[in-house]
Amino acid sequence: MAGNSFGNIFKLSTFGESHGAAIGGVLDGCPSGIEINLEAIQKELDRRKPGQSAIVTQRKEPDTVEFYSGIFEGKTTGTPIGFAIHNTNQKSKDYSHIKDSYRPSHADYVYDQKYGFRDYRGGGRSSARETASRVVAGAIAKQFLSEIEINAFVSQVGTMKLETPYQELDFSNIEKNPVRCADMEMASRMEDYIKEIRKEGDTIGGVITCVAKNVPIGLGEPVFDKLHAELGKAMLSINAVKGFEYGSGFEGVQMKGSQHNDQFNQDGSTKTNHSGGIQGGISNGMDIYFNVAFKPVATLIQPYETIDKDGNTVQTQGKGRHDPCVVPRAVPIVEAMTALVLADYTLLNRTIKGKE
Amino acid sequence: MAGNSFGNIFKLSTFGESHGAAIGGVLDGCPSGIEINLEAIQKELDRRKPGQSAIVTQRKEPDTVEFYSGIFEGKTTGTPIGFAIHNTNQKSKDYSHIKDSYRPSHADYVYDQKYGFRDYRGGGRSSARETASRVVAGAIAKQFLSEIEINAFVSQVGTMKLETPYQELDFSNIEKNPVRCADMEMASRMEDYIKEIRKEGDTIGGVITCVAKNVPIGLGEPVFDKLHAELGKAMLSINAVKGFEYGSGFEGVQMKGSQHNDQFNQDGSTKTNHSGGIQGGISNGMDIYFNVAFKPVATLIQPYETIDKDGNTVQTQGKGRHDPCVVPRAVPIVEAMTALVLADYTLLNRTIKGKE
Amino acid sequence: MAGNSFGNIFKLSTFGESHGAAIGGVLDGCPSGIEINLEAIQKELDRRKPGQSAIVTQRKEPDTVEFYSGIFEGKTTGTPIGFAIHNTNQKSKDYSHIKDSYRPSHADYVYDQKYGFRDYRGGGRSSARETASRVVAGAIAKQFLSEIEINAFVSQVGTMKLETPYQELDFSNIEKNPVRCADMEMASRMEDYIKEIRKEGDTIGGVITCVAKNVPIGLGEPVFDKLHAELGKAMLSINAVKGFEYGSGFEGVQMKGSQHNDQFNQDGSTKTNHSGGIQGGISNGMDIYFNVAFKPVATLIQPYETIDKDGNTVQTQGKGRHDPCVVPRAVPIVEAMTALVLADYTLLNRTIKGKE
Amino acid sequence: MAGNSFGNIFKLSTFGESHGAAIGGVLDGCPSGIEINLEAIQKELDRRKPGQSAIVTQRKEPDTVEFYSGIFEGKTTGTPIGFAIHNTNQKSKDYSHIKDSYRPSHADYVYDQKYGFRDYRGGGRSSARETASRVVAGAIAKQFLSEIEINAFVSQVGTMKLETPYQELDFSNIEKNPVRCADMEMASRMEDYIKEIRKEGDTIGGVITCVAKNVPIGLGEPVFDKLHAELGKAMLSINAVKGFEYGSGFEGVQMKGSQHNDQFNQDGSTKTNHSGGIQGGISNGMDIYFNVAFKPVATLIQPYETIDKDGNTVQTQGKGRHDPCVVPRAVPIVEAMTALVLADYTLLNRTIKGKE
Repeated sequence: MAGNSFGNIFKLSTFGESHGAAIGGVLDGCPSGIEINLEAIQKELDRRKPGQSAIVTQRKEPDTVEFYSGIFEGKTTGTPIGFAIHNTNQKSKDYSHIKDSYRPSHADYVYDQKYGFRDYRGGGRSSARETASRVVAGAIAKQFLSEIEINAFVSQVGTMKLETPYQELDFSNIEKNPVRCADMEMASRMEDYIKEIRKEGDTIGGVITCVAKNVPIGLGEPVFDKLHAELGKAMLSINAVKGFEYGSGFEGVQMKGSQHNDQFNQDGSTKTNHSGGIQGGISNGMDIYFNVAFKPVATLIQPYETIDKDGNTVQTQGKGRHDPCVVPRAVPIVEAMTALVLADYTLLNRTIKGKE
Repeated sequence: MAGNSFGNIFKLSTFGESHGAAIGGVLDGCPSGIEINLEAIQKELDRRKPGQSAIVTQRKEPDTVEFYSGIFEGKTTGTPIGFAIHNTNQKSKDYSHIKDSYRPSHADYVYDQKYGFRDYRGGGRSSARETASRVVAGAIAKQFLSEIEINAFVSQVGTMKLETPYQELDFSNIEKNPVRCADMEMASRMEDYIKEIRKEGDTIGGVITCVAKNVPIGLGEPVFDKLHAELGKAMLSINAVKGFEYGSGFEGVQMKGSQHNDQFNQDGSTKTNHSGGIQGGISNGMDIYFNVAFKPVATLIQPYETIDKDGNTVQTQGKGRHDPCVVPRAVPIVEAMTALVLADYTLLNRTIKGKE
Repeated sequence: MAGNSFGNIFKLSTFGESHGAAIGGVLDGCPSGIEINLEAIQKELDRRKPGQSAIVTQRKEPDTVEFYSGIFEGKTTGTPIGFAIHNTNQKSKDYSHIKDSYRPSHADYVYDQKYGFRDYRGGGRSSARETASRVVAGAIAKQFLSEIEINAFVSQVGTMKLETPYQELDFSNIEKNPVRCADMEMASRMEDYIKEIRKEGDTIGGVITCVAKNVPIGLGEPVFDKLHAELGKAMLSINAVKGFEYGSGFEGVQMKGSQHNDQFNQDGSTKTNHSGGIQGGISNGMDIYFNVAFKPVATLIQPYETIDKDGNTVQTQGKGRHDPCVVPRAVPIVEAMTALVLADYTLLNRTIKGKE
Repeated sequence: MAGNSFGNIFKLSTFGESHGAAIGGVLDGCPSGIEINLEAIQKELDRRKPGQSAIVTQRKEPDTVEFYSGIFEGKTTGTPIGFAIHNTNQKSKDYSHIKDSYRPSHADYVYDQKYGFRDYRGGGRSSARETASRVVAGAIAKQFLSEIEINAFVSQVGTMKLETPYQELDFSNIEKNPVRCADMEMASRMEDYIKEIRKEGDTIGGVITCVAKNVPIGLGEPVFDKLHAELGKAMLSINAVKGFEYGSGFEGVQMKGSQHNDQFNQDGSTKTNHSGGIQGGISNGMDIYFNVAFKPVATLIQPYETIDKDGNTVQTQGKGRHDPCVVPRAVPIVEAMTALVLADYTLLNRTIKGKE
């Protein structure tokens, strides 16, 4: 099955190439009767859009979403929500540097190999522009899940790592700095570092931490569709992601069981939370938290050598305005994908118990 | 959708509780005409089974698979392959220590919350015994994918980490030591360490690295079903897994784009492989490699305090014979899930191009 | 996707060939906590089994189902229900008349063409023996749907058609005659006719009518998964079925809208029910009723001419003991598939409305 | 799963309400490299659109499709094809006659019951306007399946039934008359009859016959996803359809096996084709043919009595311009759904055999 849909019940299908007429999607399975705040959706899109600060790409894309269906008199109707974001910036451009050659660590080469040819304009379907559709759907999922609080933030840029446990951070800081780090002092250092990287025409990786609070007990569908397995897939489907860990993650490997086990309180909550809010693939009511690793963006504003379609070596030069570090703009995408998973699993969980 | 199926075309559905009558599965979508070596399947099961060495659980489960359908005259027929592994060891036991109380960091509590009650015998559905069915199906997938070589091995136990790049390891070592480490000297140290942990009645985590060679170019279904996203989900669905990273992974975060980008050779291969054999979610013909983090097993052979169904504190004691470290037996499971993903994506990729 | 699964949430996957070791299935997504009456399941199987009367095949197949998982202490656990029916009758037989030649209007030829070869023993996967697994799962669905009454009965055999409206029939007659006709006098005539057909070594078609009462309002998922569309698919997936109609069906074509429209009573019920209990693909609380057309069984006990694998004309002779008319034994299958659809759509309908 | 997607690999998701901003869809899984004739797509839409002749509704909807993605340089790219048809006619109208009352035999009542409320403008999601999106996707499927010829035509209106076997009809007649009957003389009688019905403000049902020629051997995925089961579901998902039969259909019930069986020719074709081109759920290379029954449209231009939301009896009057008989405009929809099924099953069939 072509892989452009996500979710089982609360299901998003997206379409669109970077420089085509429009991107958009169909969100099917959103329950009826949910009040929709259109401004809140646009606000999420604005968190993702280019040009919002000095440390992201300076391209101009207003990214205004139009809804075509599924919302009536301010509420969802239970029918599919179709939407599109038109590309206002779709003039004919010079794509000669990418049309016939393959940018290193981009998808150009594999798309040509897999599909026989590709829409080479601005990365085509492999562009992260597609994630704007996810942000739209995720914003709707958030409105469905109004009890659950989802906060993502940048916890690492290059080697600069925020070591403070998330419980001690003030999430209200996140939107107060362009890096979207939850610590203002670290944010400031990260910002300076990213600016430096940009001057070099280079890029740098980062980590986003996401915390979901007030998740009800019982979400998750073992044995294959464990909650963290689906969250992991959701995160790994975002452009540039190289790793996912939840709870104790890769560091938990070093612990002994006697340290790692989360002892119960009498109300079923646990004294520690190495489990990351998920046991046996099912949410246990504690905070869900996880880390997502992003590689440095492959597009550099430097001259580089690569090959063309015929295997000839060619000299070329990165053009345009790209992100020196992808994580600040990826924060709303991580939240959106988290919301999509939680909305879907909330609906799945309605089908588990008992008679009608 | 209840989460007991994995795959789109090459699709496994499993059933069975730890101490029920049988576990097993249905493998649908395996193409017709594949010659099946039944001994090779049983051999994979034997790699996973308890009692195979001094550092794994000493339970006796012969784990003999019976095939019911889908294989005829030594070949797959293209119809579903039904199979079962009967539990020979299914006598009435004393489950009083888990029937009414919740073991810390197990799924007992969340199963009761989600489903209203649970099969408490030996962990029921949440037991890792279910993975035997995955190993059966994965062994069939391997026979379908005969060109692709999949090797997993233990690369970390607790803090003991094998730092040698996989390219310099001799994979023929893996089955020569009970840890399934690809380095004999490290294997020996890990083995001693695990024995020590066992004496304490404690457990320890570990990491498995997996390498897939000769994967054809083009596997992967962007944008949501990227090859690494599905591999990540597959791995995270294995019991006790807390993290997944591929290619440069979490360490790649610290690199600059100019270091991280994989430059092309003229034949389309790349000089480095930080991408881990996958670009834009599609295999590029280079080795695919990834790491999977396993937490320490939650079952300890120590007295511990926990709560019962009514929230009362109870004293209890781990019983039976459990694994001090799960990774040696998890190696064939990681390989099996890798094979299942690659088989499925191989079939999906047949549908991508051109006219009939 | 290989087509051996049915349903979205309440999902059955079946396996097994006619003369293999066993047939069976995995029923995933059955909610937890449903009390299971195993005798009632076996009773449904007995309604389908061969040898139950003088007008069906005289083969001996006890068809005893074994459950492997998913039921504990008399109730469903919410985990997959694995089951098998072992073939007790699996001695080596003489299949020479079908191994290398193709029986007319059977699936022999197309299976060989599609899959490259086939399990030729007794029809292999294309045998109606597979439907025993559906009856098992359907019997569980009935226990989940205890409020809904599903009654199927034979309404036509050859040209003998029961014209009485179903509302005037006494469904308690159905199990009182071997034809499973709801009218005793017509049943007797049909029985005589089928016996005559059997003497000729010939076969005859028939129609089954099915009525579902007490279906709650709201089942059905427009626009593609309308309730009647899924019921139609379910019925058409049964061996030998050639047609499906619901409500006014093919005869409704001749009516004018002014006659056909179902006027409302003040409580939302309708004065007539040409709609067949479904409007716009969604149940409206009225009785759901539909007809299913079965062709005459292709296996004749007569000499016939056909072709072999190489296209040579061969003379052969139907052997064994086959059904002269398939509809009496198909009644429990129609009910089972109806129950599977209604169970699945009942669960889907839980996901439609409002906030959590 | 919300039911707004159709197909497994070649998968269409539609969105849109009758009088919303736009209807449209996402077609995922269309293979890459297919040359797309946009005019041919628009021509199919024009066959479905209102106002094309004197016997269909006189509403004005230009139904111009806009493509947003997935087609580049005249060919499909293998990425999702997003498209929309904007509603040009979306001015504020008087919906008072349907806002608070329920039209008999429409979906108004069940939508309110299922979803809690509904978009009442012009039928909302339950309107047949949605099928325009299917026609777009079906037209693309036809271009993918260029070898296969699909012809649908009206074979019955009310009691006027075309008895000529399809083999003796000249399909080039179909587009030469507004009824889309394949016989000109019958077409003329049907046309007169429909005009008469319209004058009465009444409506009448009809039957569409569809024939697919040159379907390759091997399409169909037993046991549940038999080719005719999926075709049946596809047809039954079209608004107003009440029945489906293929090959000998409901009449075949009256035949004996000795008459009904299709004897083989030496090349594997059959002398007769009661099977309707499908045996055991798999195409056998012969013509596939089937009938689809449509009820009389529920919207009448007559005064009628019904109930409002509170169960009060109200007098109302059908307004606007509606179809006296739906079948002429449904012909391209039947063809489109047939093409979608055949495209999907063509792709599924690529995954069945042998090694990579």
